Amino acid sequence: MTTSQSPAPTKTTVGILGAGPAGLLLARLLYVAGIECVLLEAKDRAYVEHRQRAGILEQGTVDALRECGAGARLDKEGLVHHGIEFLFDKERHAIGFPELTGGRTVMIYAQTEVCKDLIELQVSAASAGAPPLLFETSALAVDGANSPNPSIRYKTKDGAEHTLSCEYVVGCDGFWGVARAAIPEELSKSYERTYPFSWLGILADVPPSNEDLIYARHPRGFTLLSMRSSTVSRNYIQVPNDTDANDWADEEIWDEIERRTETKDGWKVKRGPITQKSVTPMRSYVHEPMSYGRLFLAGDAAHIVPPTGAKGLNLAVGDVITFANAIKHKVATGSEEKLQKYSDNCLRRVWQAERFSYDMTNMLHTDPNESEFVDKLQIARLTRIVTNKAAATDTAQAYTGFPLD
Amino acid sequence: MTTSQSPAPTKTTVGILGAGPAGLLLARLLYVAGIECVLLEAKDRAYVEHRQRAGILEQGTVDALRECGAGARLDKEGLVHHGIEFLFDKERHAIGFPELTGGRTVMIYAQTEVCKDLIELQVSAASAGAPPLLFETSALAVDGANSPNPSIRYKTKDGAEHTLSCEYVVGCDGFWGVARAAIPEELSKSYERTYPFSWLGILADVPPSNEDLIYARHPRGFTLLSMRSSTVSRNYIQVPNDTDANDWADEEIWDEIERRTETKDGWKVKRGPITQKSVTPMRSYVHEPMSYGRLFLAGDAAHIVPPTGAKGLNLAVGDVITFANAIKHKVATGSEEKLQKYSDNCLRRVWQAERFSYDMTNMLHTDPNESEFVDKLQIARLTRIVTNKAAATDTAQAYTGFPLD
Repeated sequence: MTTSQSPAPTKTTVGILGAGPAGLLLARLLYVAGIECVLLEAKDRAYVEHRQRAGILEQGTVDALRECGAGARLDKEGLVHHGIEFLFDKERHAIGFPELTGGRTVMIYAQTEVCKDLIELQVSAASAGAPPLLFETSALAVDGANSPNPSIRYKTKDGAEHTLSCEYVVGCDGFWGVARAAIPEELSKSYERTYPFSWLGILADVPPSNEDLIYARHPRGFTLLSMRSSTVSRNYIQVPNDTDANDWADEEIWDEIERRTETKDGWKVKRGPITQKSVTPMRSYVHEPMSYGRLFLAGDAAHIVPPTGAKGLNLAVGDVITFANAIKHKVATGSEEKLQKYSDNCLRRVWQAERFSYDMTNMLHTDPNESEFVDKLQIARLTRIVTNKAAATDTAQAYTGFPLD
Repeated sequence: MTTSQSPAPTKTTVGILGAGPAGLLLARLLYVAGIECVLLEAKDRAYVEHRQRAGILEQGTVDALRECGAGARLDKEGLVHHGIEFLFDKERHAIGFPELTGGRTVMIYAQTEVCKDLIELQVSAASAGAPPLLFETSALAVDGANSPNPSIRYKTKDGAEHTLSCEYVVGCDGFWGVARAAIPEELSKSYERTYPFSWLGILADVPPSNEDLIYARHPRGFTLLSMRSSTVSRNYIQVPNDTDANDWADEEIWDEIERRTETKDGWKVKRGPITQKSVTPMRSYVHEPMSYGRLFLAGDAAHIVPPTGAKGLNLAVGDVITFANAIKHKVATGSEEKLQKYSDNCLRRVWQAERFSYDMTNMLHTDPNESEFVDKLQIARLTRIVTNKAAATDTAQAYTGFPLD
């Protein structure tokens, strides 16, 4: 394991920008496959290990983590979920996954923990040649993406600039990263949607109110009752954009959650001390294509989904698995065919996830600009899903993950 | 059979407003059940038999027509359809119904023919006491809907006003009819959506271009290739609102259809002489409740759907079957329970049809006000339906008909 104290590397096979779960998993997959790589991350290790993000892993994500050796703690501490519930018109309705998807489940295991596990794994493997994870090292630009030898210009903590010459570059550097800018504007097309609402999310030291997640539609707005572990609840309520989390007193948040999750049988959310609260805006975004020459984008660098469908992290994982398979194919056969198909293959899955995330969002959130006709359509959609097996199956299959191409 | 020449009736069990397919089928169902009724229709018989409307009958509609003796010509001339096709990105994709719905199909048989058959049936049965079908007889108002004896004020062709005293009144008199106005405003709630596009529809003397209907999404707009019979095509193209059909020369219409239904394999629409063209606006509308006291609304009097899902006529048929079953239950048992549940039971089915019609419309039409992100979502939705069995099943089950409550 190389840290930011190591000499600045100048040459590798795959240069990776960003040590989120996508970049870290890719580094691990390449290490396991014996393909050399270097990973650059602007923030420090503690930051990466503690930024609160997603927490729901699809079956395919769990399988990938296990296969590359990162499954030990996940299998001990992760909570396997066999379904979700929809709550609307004061009634709860369960959608069971295994029976509708040929046995698939999802797992509750926070992104922070995935990152910790992958970092720890590489640190332990350092003596065996595990790829350098360079924290506090900022990528400045990707040059020559369409040439045989693309390179990453980067700056180390001491302010010195360096160049990393690569055979391939993978941008896992998020929506605000530099990788995407290396694709010429005239070849780029982006698709975007913003939403007239955000999520106020809380972490609370209280066991989850329900074994499964509850997605609640209420005239006052959407609520999600989720969890981080068996002792920590992770709940969200729909709020107007530009809401300041500090304007909400803790008791006001619980009161609002309780109001929106009221049921006819008197069931109530469990309250507890709130340890963190923050507001997340909602966005849909796709950049096409997802590759250019020898530069490949993965995760938020190429696409954003609103969190309602729990797709963001899982999409990123799908991207890097697709890339890893493509480069392994190149190494094994000399053929770049799979690398050339990377963008198209990813985008088919990405658009399905965009669609699902958009539809889940639109079905569950109230939009102050929409008519009561749309309210009734939302109820009709939810009713369809909880009363028609085909519709429930479609939803369960989408929630547990779209297949890789 | 009583015609408008008959003496004006003053008393009956069920007064029916409107001789569209809903009113005519209801009169037939009541006659078969031995329940007396009178049907009033403002237009003359020829008008009712020739106004071009729907042409796709769900399995349940076909079954109901057969059961009440109106199936003979339909079974000879109707075209059984085992599926539909979606055309997008220049490729055609078949959705087969029987294999996804436990054997259900739909039938192509025009509303005009359904009306002719039902009218003819009652005319033949006149000597046996078939209910009067009073053409050119305008309902003016429904009075005392919430009393034990509601009545219909109406005007005969000669201008004379009369009153029909009823035990029950059923308004099958369409969106512009008078029945709905008898429900007090303070108890009424209506839900509505208009659309930024209309359909330019043509009848053409040319065999259908394809055995199944083709629903085509194209950047230039939606196109539906349908048919009235094995020798008459019924095609539609999306046009801006306020389009004048006469502004489109026949060849321009064919050129536009051909452009929008282009496929990679060179398949082409069949052209022929256009015998009729007209523009239909699109609307979603639901009035709640669908009953008040002893007044019951059925069909367009209570709800409108855009035609994309082929639901309008079939919803109306579902309503009158529900009413007929409820009043038969009342006659048989003395219980008004089913009549009291009429509105709620119908509305569950109606809202599913509203949802399906809205989603089909939104998936297939281009909206000049929408972003390219939404274009991509449309393609993703269509792709989901044609590649995922659960999504195809959901669509096939919805298209072939929602169950009656």
